[in-house]
Amino acid sequence: MIDQSHSPIHAAVEQFVREELSQENAHIAGAVWSMLDAGGKQLRPRITMLAGRAAAQSSPEDPVLASYMELIHVATLIHDDVLDNAGTRRGRQSTNRAYGNRFSVLAGDYLFSWVFKKITIGYAPPVPTILAAMLAEICNGEVKQLRAAGDLAMTPERYLEIIGKKTAELFGSCAEVGAINALLQAGKPSGPALRAETEVLALREFGRLFGLAFQIRDDLYDATASEAQLGKPAGSDLREKKMTLPLIYALADGGAGARERVERLFAYDDPSDECAQNALGAVVEMLRDRAVVERTTHAVQRYAGEALRALAPLPQSAARDELAGLARSLSAFSS
Amino acid sequence: MIDQSHSPIHAAVEQFVREELSQENAHIAGAVWSMLDAGGKQLRPRITMLAGRAAAQSSPEDPVLASYMELIHVATLIHDDVLDNAGTRRGRQSTNRAYGNRFSVLAGDYLFSWVFKKITIGYAPPVPTILAAMLAEICNGEVKQLRAAGDLAMTPERYLEIIGKKTAELFGSCAEVGAINALLQAGKPSGPALRAETEVLALREFGRLFGLAFQIRDDLYDATASEAQLGKPAGSDLREKKMTLPLIYALADGGAGARERVERLFAYDDPSDECAQNALGAVVEMLRDRAVVERTTHAVQRYAGEALRALAPLPQSAARDELAGLARSLSAFSS
Repeated sequence: MIDQSHSPIHAAVEQFVREELSQENAHIAGAVWSMLDAGGKQLRPRITMLAGRAAAQSSPEDPVLASYMELIHVATLIHDDVLDNAGTRRGRQSTNRAYGNRFSVLAGDYLFSWVFKKITIGYAPPVPTILAAMLAEICNGEVKQLRAAGDLAMTPERYLEIIGKKTAELFGSCAEVGAINALLQAGKPSGPALRAETEVLALREFGRLFGLAFQIRDDLYDATASEAQLGKPAGSDLREKKMTLPLIYALADGGAGARERVERLFAYDDPSDECAQNALGAVVEMLRDRAVVERTTHAVQRYAGEALRALAPLPQSAARDELAGLARSLSAFSS
Repeated sequence: MIDQSHSPIHAAVEQFVREELSQENAHIAGAVWSMLDAGGKQLRPRITMLAGRAAAQSSPEDPVLASYMELIHVATLIHDDVLDNAGTRRGRQSTNRAYGNRFSVLAGDYLFSWVFKKITIGYAPPVPTILAAMLAEICNGEVKQLRAAGDLAMTPERYLEIIGKKTAELFGSCAEVGAINALLQAGKPSGPALRAETEVLALREFGRLFGLAFQIRDDLYDATASEAQLGKPAGSDLREKKMTLPLIYALADGGAGARERVERLFAYDDPSDECAQNALGAVVEMLRDRAVVERTTHAVQRYAGEALRALAPLPQSAARDELAGLARSLSAFSS
């Protein structure tokens, strides 16, 4: 785990929410605040700011844009919690449990629209379009994931397509708008052509690959880490019948016995049932199998390595080194 | 009821959804399509287009912008259905019943972000900012309504503030962006100053007042119309403990007896309970009282009349006459 809880970015995000959001709608700000306060790694604002410095070292830092990226992420988490009816998030009560589903849907909608209002006022093209398109793509990925739930015929390719949309798109966009914003500050003219600049393309690709590695690692952790490490019960992806990469590998390696165990688990409508708990334990064990863990870890390392190589076209800088460090820390994890 | 099911605007909205949206995400388009297909009065796109013609008669019509306004409305309905766990909408199964809550939240999010992407690409400032701010304001109103549910101390002033945000803001914005878009087409320079043009201010105010009258009429219908007329069971606002204007008036007029009947109804957690049905019937009767209906009707007429007067600064045109006709048709209703 990367601990950024005392970084200046974390402070900037918190200060921003406290000062700006609270005045406009106190109830929604309270929900958002409890989510930010609960921690989280603030990886998205961090990548947004580092991408800016890596693209144009002379441009001033923009913790506000970075904050917006974190807020969009928080909004998607709030809506995710409604979708999944999750009981805990980041080790605390999720927003839907604390405030009710109705309020959570509205709070997420409010956050999205509030951030878009700020973005359309403060940032030149193509920044607003990138963020709106990003959000559509994330939803697209979530819908595809929902439709693929419990589908044992899932392939690694379809899995990568889904996490490319639902997770990597946000990391890629963080890096892209961070870079574009820095180029705008450095005096480049606004417009869609900015998306084709060498630094922008390299950083977007870094973010996308980092996001793939991040999600695969997250999906592995869901089965291999403890409840204390996760901040939520282990195996929660399995409870939602999510077809993650370790599950796909375990099914491919485990033959008819593995398939039967997963089918038995997915047949339960109520995952709190005692028999369902036993079935869940059996599948979690399958995902903790050494061969499955190694194969999944290899996939994390592959995308983290590709993310590192995506940084090559950028000039040497402290920010580029920090981005490389983030990718290495994903790759170096042990479960 | 204003029947626009065979108008060219309706056809344009349908054609647009069929051609454009279906290619990008067929599942979500299917949900949206079933909602548009179910009818609806298409008042928002109609007002968007009429406002454009009323502001600048020489500008070409823009059924695409009008379609976007209807799609934003549809997205809020899809999320509303999740919130309210409504069983029917426009006489058909609501999206959440037909597709599941998870899918509905995503479909609404997708629609919002898809429309914003199109708007940021196709429309100059301040159009994107107006629409993002509008959505934040609608959510604000919905949160306030949620917090005020079952609050018997509700005043007409707070009710008007809530419907001003949750309903009138959208109508006002339809008229405003319709007018601004027409002025842009007529060659006016883009930017926030457009919001202060005489035609724009007059049309936004028309839309806002029309929206107030529309919502008050809708709230009265909820108690006085039949299930066949409503396309959903009568008294559904009461089931959700919404403090509507007729209820506020009935409480003010009815003394302790009225208060007791409402308290008894709101004490039921399960509105399908037989005793709850009896309690509901008793309160619906209170709202159908002649004095309550007359007082509420008077409020509709007042705001519809103010909407008519808001059109005064505009030059005479067929479009202005049509807008006036829409306001008059609200005012002339009989329950």
